[in-house]
Amino acid sequence: MQREVLDGAKRMVRDAIIQKLDIKIMLSSSNTIRIADFGCSVGPNTFIAMQHVVQALKDKLLQVTNSTNNIPEFQIFFNDHVINDFNTLFQSLPIDRSYYAFGVPRTFHGRLFPSRSIHFAHSSCAIHWLSKIYKELLDEKSPAWNKGSIHYICTSNVEVVNSYVAQFEKDMEMLLNARAEEIVEGGMMVLVTPFASYTRLMNFFGSSLMDLVNEGKLDESLVDSFNFPMYFPSPEDMTKVVEKNGCFSIEIMELTYAKSKLVEKVDAKTLMINLRAVLEGLIINHFGSEIAKEACARIILKSEEISTWMKANYEKSCQLFVALKHK
Amino acid sequence: MQREVLDGAKRMVRDAIIQKLDIKIMLSSSNTIRIADFGCSVGPNTFIAMQHVVQALKDKLLQVTNSTNNIPEFQIFFNDHVINDFNTLFQSLPIDRSYYAFGVPRTFHGRLFPSRSIHFAHSSCAIHWLSKIYKELLDEKSPAWNKGSIHYICTSNVEVVNSYVAQFEKDMEMLLNARAEEIVEGGMMVLVTPFASYTRLMNFFGSSLMDLVNEGKLDESLVDSFNFPMYFPSPEDMTKVVEKNGCFSIEIMELTYAKSKLVEKVDAKTLMINLRAVLEGLIINHFGSEIAKEACARIILKSEEISTWMKANYEKSCQLFVALKHK
Repeated sequence: MQREVLDGAKRMVRDAIIQKLDIKIMLSSSNTIRIADFGCSVGPNTFIAMQHVVQALKDKLLQVTNSTNNIPEFQIFFNDHVINDFNTLFQSLPIDRSYYAFGVPRTFHGRLFPSRSIHFAHSSCAIHWLSKIYKELLDEKSPAWNKGSIHYICTSNVEVVNSYVAQFEKDMEMLLNARAEEIVEGGMMVLVTPFASYTRLMNFFGSSLMDLVNEGKLDESLVDSFNFPMYFPSPEDMTKVVEKNGCFSIEIMELTYAKSKLVEKVDAKTLMINLRAVLEGLIINHFGSEIAKEACARIILKSEEISTWMKANYEKSCQLFVALKHK
Repeated sequence: MQREVLDGAKRMVRDAIIQKLDIKIMLSSSNTIRIADFGCSVGPNTFIAMQHVVQALKDKLLQVTNSTNNIPEFQIFFNDHVINDFNTLFQSLPIDRSYYAFGVPRTFHGRLFPSRSIHFAHSSCAIHWLSKIYKELLDEKSPAWNKGSIHYICTSNVEVVNSYVAQFEKDMEMLLNARAEEIVEGGMMVLVTPFASYTRLMNFFGSSLMDLVNEGKLDESLVDSFNFPMYFPSPEDMTKVVEKNGCFSIEIMELTYAKSKLVEKVDAKTLMINLRAVLEGLIINHFGSEIAKEACARIILKSEEISTWMKANYEKSCQLFVALKHK
């Protein structure tokens, strides 16, 4: 699914670079172009995305300078949490890469680079992960208590949604403040987030957990004490946080549908593999591996329902693409 | 033992920075100081060494600018082979570090950074590892056949020594060529290598292996087909490779004795733990774990002999310290 988002974003990243980037200003002080991928995971998606970025930047340079001389050197910084498997990432780096590769371990909500040192920032399928969730979601005395659900989607309680939005805004405020210092004037930041697909996965998972509660196999308080730390921002959410920060202009903002046939072909098994990869650590930590296994087994039982939904709705499976330029 | 080398080098690194570094030239184009540690392993020695470097650079800056305003930002690049355990390295990074930290996976014999981007390069206990050994050491028809020994130390065959020296020179040529491109004008490179301690460890290990051969427990051809890829350069070796490269001036070249009491206290058990940590992968790969275990057990049998030697010779346990400046 991350790959699908990546493929969808490929053309848009290229368009943003070719149409919106003033590469001459960026290179005025140095012959090195520094690119960062925030939330890179272990590859290979990050390598594919970064290769596209490098190629688009090279093409843009060729257009502007009209010469193949003096091609700049590229530095690519692969960032993710300190617990990311950087060993796997490093060992999978393309041997014939045309850039210098670096790992940067630490959350992207804080500073990672010196001031004015990054020319192009990229983040795909990462900023929708919240750094935490508000405790009020777990507090039965709070109006934002998220009873019987593991996320904010499809809830009728607006306080729950507000709590998720507030955390997203707080995280983005930190991210944008840090990047505003790090990105050079005229530099670009591209943010890509999945928009609908994951939410559906979570719904299926949540309802499987509630089935277990209804059958008396799982204590409801365990469901109530868990909230998925993910928020899928809308264009309005993004506009709000970017305007509040004030250092970036929105060059492109696009909601796009999945063009690939991938979603049509997805069966319940593939879905579950995807689901587990994304959710496993969190779910097993909270519910234990027995319940996690059982909930996944339930999803298989719903495979027909899921397939029907996938076929009917895959065109809604879309992503939000945002290209920002540092003022 | 690496820690001992580190402690010994601490004062010298500081002296090199305070006395020999022209920090104003280095900072003329940027307010970021970029430092690289080549062959960093997994810590904590690299963190201690880098903290000393940062502190010395800050003190030097204070001396020169006479002001605490406008302190530059520090970027530290931790380099080692791609198979180094960067996960452990990253997870051990000091939380309260005053620098931006990066991992750089790839051999330091090739290019790792853009041109003119590094201000201070450091390498401790790393450049004596050869990238490979010449095949002639294993060839019984060659005059450099290293029969009955696992390294070049104490051999009477000058061809064996020449073969090791030739590989060292080749590796250093690549290393110096790469750094000559990467280090800024006026930038500094400090190289620290152990000089005697490891060689003795290898002697004890080699003679234990030959004991096993003499007892018929190990085939001599297996000893003959193994050569430790380590060469301990003399001041003359270093001068030769630096002069051949031509891009660096030798600012400091010092052979120093271990000042710590550590060596006096070393017993055979500590020695073996050290030995295993250094040699384990190589030895087990070549001889299998049974022989490796047996050879280590032999060293314990020689503990009295080793202790006597350590006490008599610890003052000879020394390191070579070289500070180079990019012309």
